[in-house]
Amino acid sequence: MAAGSKVSPTPLLKDELDIVIPTIRNLDFLEMWRPFFEQYHLIIVQDGDPSKTIKVPEGFDYELYNRNDINKILGPKASCISFKDSACRCFGYMVSKKKYIYTIDDDCFVAKNPSGKDINALEQHIKNLLTPSTPFFFNTLYDPYREGADFVRGYPFSLREGAPTAVSHGLWLNIPDYDAPTQLVKPLERNTRYVDAVMTIPKGTLFPMCGMNLAFNRELIGPAMYFGLMGDGQPIGRYDDMWAGWCMKVICDHLGYGVKTGLPYIWHSKASNPFVNLKKEYKGIYWQEELIPFFQSVTLSKDCTTVQKCYIEISKQVKAKLGKVDEYFNKLADAMVTWIEAWDEQNSSGGLSADATNGPAK
Amino acid sequence: MAAGSKVSPTPLLKDELDIVIPTIRNLDFLEMWRPFFEQYHLIIVQDGDPSKTIKVPEGFDYELYNRNDINKILGPKASCISFKDSACRCFGYMVSKKKYIYTIDDDCFVAKNPSGKDINALEQHIKNLLTPSTPFFFNTLYDPYREGADFVRGYPFSLREGAPTAVSHGLWLNIPDYDAPTQLVKPLERNTRYVDAVMTIPKGTLFPMCGMNLAFNRELIGPAMYFGLMGDGQPIGRYDDMWAGWCMKVICDHLGYGVKTGLPYIWHSKASNPFVNLKKEYKGIYWQEELIPFFQSVTLSKDCTTVQKCYIEISKQVKAKLGKVDEYFNKLADAMVTWIEAWDEQNSSGGLSADATNGPAK
Repeated sequence: MAAGSKVSPTPLLKDELDIVIPTIRNLDFLEMWRPFFEQYHLIIVQDGDPSKTIKVPEGFDYELYNRNDINKILGPKASCISFKDSACRCFGYMVSKKKYIYTIDDDCFVAKNPSGKDINALEQHIKNLLTPSTPFFFNTLYDPYREGADFVRGYPFSLREGAPTAVSHGLWLNIPDYDAPTQLVKPLERNTRYVDAVMTIPKGTLFPMCGMNLAFNRELIGPAMYFGLMGDGQPIGRYDDMWAGWCMKVICDHLGYGVKTGLPYIWHSKASNPFVNLKKEYKGIYWQEELIPFFQSVTLSKDCTTVQKCYIEISKQVKAKLGKVDEYFNKLADAMVTWIEAWDEQNSSGGLSADATNGPAK
Repeated sequence: MAAGSKVSPTPLLKDELDIVIPTIRNLDFLEMWRPFFEQYHLIIVQDGDPSKTIKVPEGFDYELYNRNDINKILGPKASCISFKDSACRCFGYMVSKKKYIYTIDDDCFVAKNPSGKDINALEQHIKNLLTPSTPFFFNTLYDPYREGADFVRGYPFSLREGAPTAVSHGLWLNIPDYDAPTQLVKPLERNTRYVDAVMTIPKGTLFPMCGMNLAFNRELIGPAMYFGLMGDGQPIGRYDDMWAGWCMKVICDHLGYGVKTGLPYIWHSKASNPFVNLKKEYKGIYWQEELIPFFQSVTLSKDCTTVQKCYIEISKQVKAKLGKVDEYFNKLADAMVTWIEAWDEQNSSGGLSADATNGPAK
């Protein structure tokens, strides 16, 4: 149905984008992605036992970090990187030197569009990131920058330039990204609905960001993409991407960046164990009832002109307001500061701490 | 692609819904809608020359009001109803005695879904209105109440009951609803993309509401659906539905009601003349740059517990803040008050002025 014809080819950005994959297993899933990923550089973050060897199919260009590498590179600051949880992926964001990141889980495969054609998820993410967002006013025909679409009657002309896009949140066919209670109640539900749309999540609106199929502009928003303290030794799991999403969205709203969701779809193959998930999630499920009002009310001052400054300010508010919910949030607030310190160490020459008011550094 | 199977039949609401059609011509377009509309009552608002006879195809149950009728029924308060502009349709909302309204333009035909099946637009609107909205948090799989969908991981459980739905804004295939400048620049653009989604427009976000294919719960939000002063004797046209949409959205946000957009599509057959449209719109195009910041900053006090009270409060702020943009807004503010007075007269026995805090009256 959609006018799939491209007016101009999408730039590949092959020297400007890293693909970050957290994993504990051999990366056979890459075979299916070969036509789409082979030209890119991969950053593989190996979780769990560092003595295990992860096999990567031949022909891929990659660097791989296990826990020993992370400890060696970050020293004591490695404490901010989670262990035995896919939250460890954010280490890859930190050591990348590229402008864009795409991150994908190793149980995600190539999906097909309604015409039966393989979806090049990365190409769609790049399109999403390279075109502006519309966070200040809702366009009823969805992405106005897409071929065949535009701004509808009543859309203010002064807002049609849009805002720079910081994040492209892709979706999943087959196994939906449900929490443990919903998994338990609806074990057989599959997402079969292909919604042919990309849209901007309006300013001031929070959403549940899933890390399974996610791309972002690292220069614009990288330091906000911290996936928190999850997994080994922590009281909570499966809220890593949520935490990053809430922090990121508040900062994007403050700095005037856009966040998109919708296309592209990937095929999510494997439902995780709902009983294990319930154990990881249950504290998150009730803490979240306090987290959402907290993030809805966070305000950042005019002095917060960089992502780093915004993030440090949020860490202070986390300590002040969520510390009383649970001691965990004091620990998390400290880890947020450590993360920014480590980020700046790893990215000291790139000018990534430049004021957002001066435009993104390159 | 979508799981189109219905779990339970959608109630027809045939005794609880009126279809409002503004027109200046014979209603031959109803032939195509016969299978879907014939069971419903129509309210036809005849615009323009009242001596002209509008032919309605046989078998439809309708009442028809021309300008003479409007003047007779409302007396001096008829001044708030526009003439020679489809804004006159809101008279139909006022004299209806039903809980729900569906309004459609007479150049809108039955569209087909991607499988080639005729879309029952009214049935989809009814579904949209009878299921809750999710204005407080964005669900990435769109409408969580639809079959095959749900709330995703990270969606707060306390928000899963949703909010009552006040408005269902449907879309259009073929001729998109563009403003005159966009029509002029892209005369051949057609909307061919069927996006299989219904979503809630988040709280705090404004959108351009189009009156072409629109349904609402009259009990919840009716008095806010005033289409303003447009057309004959007014300096502006084609902003009637926009005005209603902005007022309505601010009030829904205040009272905790939801607004949906997306499905159903109708087939919009006829592009209006862009030169005529430009003449109608040009003041709106620059006034709008002040109107949007105005509506984005309107706040309603806790005393505004009914739609009427909210609306009167907005009329005061229109006079105070937009009167200086143009004298027109003083006239419009007065007409807003007249509209509410007329609404209450026409609906005096129905209890429609009841406090929203006591729930909608029936």
